[in-house]
Amino acid sequence: MRILKELVAEKDSTDLGKELHAFVVKLYPICRSITGDGLRRTLRMIQDRIPLEVTQVPTGTSVFDWTVPREWNIRDAYIKDAHGKRVVDFQESNLHVLHYSMPVHATMSLSELKPHLFTLPEHPGWIPYRTSYYKENWGFCLPDHQMLALKDGEYEVCIDSSLEDGHLTYGECYFSGRSTDEVLISCHVCHPSLANDNLSGLTVATALAELLSRMDLRYSYRFLFIPGTIGAITWLARNRETLGRVQHGLVLTGIGDNGGFHYKKSRRGNADIDRAVEHVLRHQGEPSEILEFSPYGYDERQYCSPGFNLPVGCLMRSVWGTYPEYHTSADNLTFVQPSQLAGSLQVCAAIVDVLEGNRRYRNLNPYCEPQLGKRNLYRSTGGESISTEINARLWVLNLSDGEHSLLEIAERAGLPFAAISDAADLLRENGLLAPVADRKTGAAPEGSSQPNPTKVPQRKQVAALD
Amino acid sequence: MRILKELVAEKDSTDLGKELHAFVVKLYPICRSITGDGLRRTLRMIQDRIPLEVTQVPTGTSVFDWTVPREWNIRDAYIKDAHGKRVVDFQESNLHVLHYSMPVHATMSLSELKPHLFTLPEHPGWIPYRTSYYKENWGFCLPDHQMLALKDGEYEVCIDSSLEDGHLTYGECYFSGRSTDEVLISCHVCHPSLANDNLSGLTVATALAELLSRMDLRYSYRFLFIPGTIGAITWLARNRETLGRVQHGLVLTGIGDNGGFHYKKSRRGNADIDRAVEHVLRHQGEPSEILEFSPYGYDERQYCSPGFNLPVGCLMRSVWGTYPEYHTSADNLTFVQPSQLAGSLQVCAAIVDVLEGNRRYRNLNPYCEPQLGKRNLYRSTGGESISTEINARLWVLNLSDGEHSLLEIAERAGLPFAAISDAADLLRENGLLAPVADRKTGAAPEGSSQPNPTKVPQRKQVAALD
Amino acid sequence: MRILKELVAEKDSTDLGKELHAFVVKLYPICRSITGDGLRRTLRMIQDRIPLEVTQVPTGTSVFDWTVPREWNIRDAYIKDAHGKRVVDFQESNLHVLHYSMPVHATMSLSELKPHLFTLPEHPGWIPYRTSYYKENWGFCLPDHQMLALKDGEYEVCIDSSLEDGHLTYGECYFSGRSTDEVLISCHVCHPSLANDNLSGLTVATALAELLSRMDLRYSYRFLFIPGTIGAITWLARNRETLGRVQHGLVLTGIGDNGGFHYKKSRRGNADIDRAVEHVLRHQGEPSEILEFSPYGYDERQYCSPGFNLPVGCLMRSVWGTYPEYHTSADNLTFVQPSQLAGSLQVCAAIVDVLEGNRRYRNLNPYCEPQLGKRNLYRSTGGESISTEINARLWVLNLSDGEHSLLEIAERAGLPFAAISDAADLLRENGLLAPVADRKTGAAPEGSSQPNPTKVPQRKQVAALD
Repeated sequence: MRILKELVAEKDSTDLGKELHAFVVKLYPICRSITGDGLRRTLRMIQDRIPLEVTQVPTGTSVFDWTVPREWNIRDAYIKDAHGKRVVDFQESNLHVLHYSMPVHATMSLSELKPHLFTLPEHPGWIPYRTSYYKENWGFCLPDHQMLALKDGEYEVCIDSSLEDGHLTYGECYFSGRSTDEVLISCHVCHPSLANDNLSGLTVATALAELLSRMDLRYSYRFLFIPGTIGAITWLARNRETLGRVQHGLVLTGIGDNGGFHYKKSRRGNADIDRAVEHVLRHQGEPSEILEFSPYGYDERQYCSPGFNLPVGCLMRSVWGTYPEYHTSADNLTFVQPSQLAGSLQVCAAIVDVLEGNRRYRNLNPYCEPQLGKRNLYRSTGGESISTEINARLWVLNLSDGEHSLLEIAERAGLPFAAISDAADLLRENGLLAPVADRKTGAAPEGSSQPNPTKVPQRKQVAALD
Repeated sequence: MRILKELVAEKDSTDLGKELHAFVVKLYPICRSITGDGLRRTLRMIQDRIPLEVTQVPTGTSVFDWTVPREWNIRDAYIKDAHGKRVVDFQESNLHVLHYSMPVHATMSLSELKPHLFTLPEHPGWIPYRTSYYKENWGFCLPDHQMLALKDGEYEVCIDSSLEDGHLTYGECYFSGRSTDEVLISCHVCHPSLANDNLSGLTVATALAELLSRMDLRYSYRFLFIPGTIGAITWLARNRETLGRVQHGLVLTGIGDNGGFHYKKSRRGNADIDRAVEHVLRHQGEPSEILEFSPYGYDERQYCSPGFNLPVGCLMRSVWGTYPEYHTSADNLTFVQPSQLAGSLQVCAAIVDVLEGNRRYRNLNPYCEPQLGKRNLYRSTGGESISTEINARLWVLNLSDGEHSLLEIAERAGLPFAAISDAADLLRENGLLAPVADRKTGAAPEGSSQPNPTKVPQRKQVAALD
Repeated sequence: MRILKELVAEKDSTDLGKELHAFVVKLYPICRSITGDGLRRTLRMIQDRIPLEVTQVPTGTSVFDWTVPREWNIRDAYIKDAHGKRVVDFQESNLHVLHYSMPVHATMSLSELKPHLFTLPEHPGWIPYRTSYYKENWGFCLPDHQMLALKDGEYEVCIDSSLEDGHLTYGECYFSGRSTDEVLISCHVCHPSLANDNLSGLTVATALAELLSRMDLRYSYRFLFIPGTIGAITWLARNRETLGRVQHGLVLTGIGDNGGFHYKKSRRGNADIDRAVEHVLRHQGEPSEILEFSPYGYDERQYCSPGFNLPVGCLMRSVWGTYPEYHTSADNLTFVQPSQLAGSLQVCAAIVDVLEGNRRYRNLNPYCEPQLGKRNLYRSTGGESISTEINARLWVLNLSDGEHSLLEIAERAGLPFAAISDAADLLRENGLLAPVADRKTGAAPEGSSQPNPTKVPQRKQVAALD
């Protein structure tokens, strides 16, 4: 079986990093929000690379306890001083405006203006990123030292935005595998000029989808490119009946910065995805950390709400809120590194390889060890120590009682999944192992003689946007 | 809901400590034992403060494998030297006599006397506390240096005690709550002039009972003021049929000294009381230690015997037998500190608050998060980090699936119980949570619309003593 | 009940070590292999000491995935240089030949000879031990510096061996106990002049069997003296129907060297044997280490194959492959120490004592503590701390609810098994405990009034060898 990691390795790691970073650069200037033209433009650019079905949900639609909001678009925004000079200018950075600001055009004193200004005193040179999606307000975000420099006097304030009935938009990319059981990869696409949060996530997800399109897959894969919170809630509300298919899921976010990996476990805490990611991170060579589930964070909040409790974790490098650049203008194109993006894609590929390759086998010679020597699977001269390859074979034979998965065997053996998976392939070719049907799905495993009745060509037609 | 901790906080902590210590001072001089007048006098002084039902069980009554012993009373005891001078005098300290000594009046040589003398060579200035309840004997306890100073010669020995048929006496204070399920608080009252072991325990228990008398209670509470071992055995033998009501229990002992808290877990090891006390101790700000159950100790030995296996732990400061003052004249009124008594009462109040407030809820919007913002339960400007209050709300919503108790949620969130409990109250007021009936008791939770048929006015008439 | 540890202690520890070492010395020169005369001679020497049933299985017999190999015997082997001088001589060390070498007699150049020479460059003075059981080959093992000294030229090579149809031989010593449930002790007997691996194991096993022959036993004991791998596989194949009797098992190997004990757990990881050995090692006073199960090692590989999954662990001192002397001529008579052999026998005796003595009791006074004082099982003067003996009694009484075994009680109490077992014996004599029937076997415990219908005299007739 071809594995994804090898597909990633076909490309030089430096080149891969450059390509990934180039996509971040391309998307960076767009003014995205949870609705509006910037979001649609972003989805179109992803659609240029992978098959994306785009869904538009009208303003006012009820989704569980929430309502799809009005669509927000913005053309310009500024604060002009008494000399008519733009002292704060949306054209310079789309972070300068409180996102979802009501339209406003007025002249006011500095003291009237001040309650509408947001700064970061602890980082006086940075613009904070602030929003007011669900409470009508308007405002500007600016460096603290710039605010302190404003003199008393009259200011012309203009936000040329619109808040009108329209749509919430999201994109979905689906690859059908041998089973209808799904792996869900979700990333938010609603942040404006912020590179790590979350252009890094959607960029790696897009590249991962490109790679998966070239694979023969066991699971079906669904990539979601959605506005944070309201997008996840809307998608869940519209797909409630088929959520049972989600066997494993991952929110990808903030994976381009210089930090080591962090994986936040699903609410279940011991789901297969939790074990797969922990295993991959332990063997990928850099320091990493596993975090227990908590109800604050990204869209795993919604997937892991108690009514769904889906097995969805969240893969990051630095954790939101713990690094100073988070939600500021310092989360820019230099904050995200090509090499880190490439490393994140490699880790994602290794995780997919574990999910795809993790199965249970039955040792067909369970009474004593089979004689590996006569099959040329053992050393020929006794008395010396054995190799890792032979050790992996012994582990697979010993624990393949139909109960232990290859991932569990790899964990007990302290060996990387690939070593155990390779051993299983070899033993199977030699007639020593038989695959066991997946317990959860009843789907016949790859290469079994039974035809898989669930395999239906399902790659949907992709609607062009606009 | 009013919580006990607030009631305790009404009083200045220093004043509280002084009041508690004053009761220890008042009780200190009395010569208590497992039976007799000193014990009854002590119970009367507790009865002056809280409603106490006193039970008298006649000598000779069989209680499981034991028999209620004869009643012991003592008026005087001394050793006089050849000059008629009292060299050991019960009037100076009631520790000077081996408790439960037979009456004796004789003249004998020092060598005849010596087998009846008990000292502590490692602390030559202290009088040890020794007893001989179940083997007929007589003796004197004295400082080692005093014994070494005794010269050869004749001594007059007198113990003016009586061992006669009478009663074993204990006190019981019961407050009925909305449920007949009980919380048991037990402390022994049989030790003579020893301040920490166990005037500290009965003093804090008495103050706790005073506070509970002013509360609307979920559980019923039963305070036992009993002689150690034989008292607990007698009470258990007489109340065997209703022990099933005991849902949580605590032995209070040695909680006035300068040491940090120690909690010895119940035999079950994971009872609700174990988790509640562990949680409170972790958040009370001082170092503390959790001890596994062991079969030696105080009356939890009897409550946790295998036939009962009640969920009863033991709360202490320094652990019996580990501090040199234990069971000696150095466990005196300066060994027990007002501030430590006040701190112990505060911890007990916090434990009661957890027991009273710990319940399970069901999130009424379990599919995705409910929109807290439209209920003014969220921040209005997005992009910044959230407060502990909002975090607590998210935890309660996420884990309120009818399975997790508030205490379990507090543990997983790493937040104090009060923060989680406050969040639950707020979410419930906003119609987002519904209480789940207690599994063990089937009792309807507080504020539910069903009337509680088990609520019966049960405060018993209290018999006056003597 | 008499315990084995006392039997071992009858002999002075130094004398015991000398006796054990003397048997290693006696067996050391013999050229053993997995078949052949050396193996049979070794079994005969064991048979001189304990009743051994010897089984001969013909070449060609199918045993699971394996086939019993031809029998190998060797009379002489050498390499002569051009002057006719033996530069490598089997008569000097039986390690000099690749075991299971085909017969060969030829003259060849050094370069033709070299592929048949095995050395250890990292220990140039030692002869390695190498085998080629299942691939036809011939060769010599020699010190590396000796090989480097060989000059170019012609060499006469002779291996006077035979590979012919014959038998695989193993020995079995069985002692029947009150139950047919068995304890299996297995050690391999196929290694030539290697002292630790595994003359140490078979020597300690033989001594243990001698001791057990003098005991009244609860379990039946079966000692296997077998060739490694193929011997275990053959025995398992021939005894498949009765393997269910094996309740506990131990592979004894490499237990004479200077290292601390290592115990490799059974595949189950929490079998009674695992807990018993862990307990004994924790209390035996020297550093020791517990290893998780792994599928490489000694014959526990076969006993713990997934089709059997027997509760068999492996007791060693230094772990195979981790010490440089392993499988070399340096594993000699000085590498194995008399004192270490004696210590290993003592530990084995303590393990047997735990297995024999570990049972469940029911406290006949489960409601409160029974009054130990009136039975003279408690101290008489109260107020002082209690002794370990009394503490052990309280532990046994508290946890003897029919669920906890004495070993579990010892673990929770932090006391050695013997202390808990002694307390149980005393309490039982005093009518305070009743034994509970073994759950697994339904066998009535020792001393119960029911006759044990499974007790049948089963000591088999022992066939003399040759």
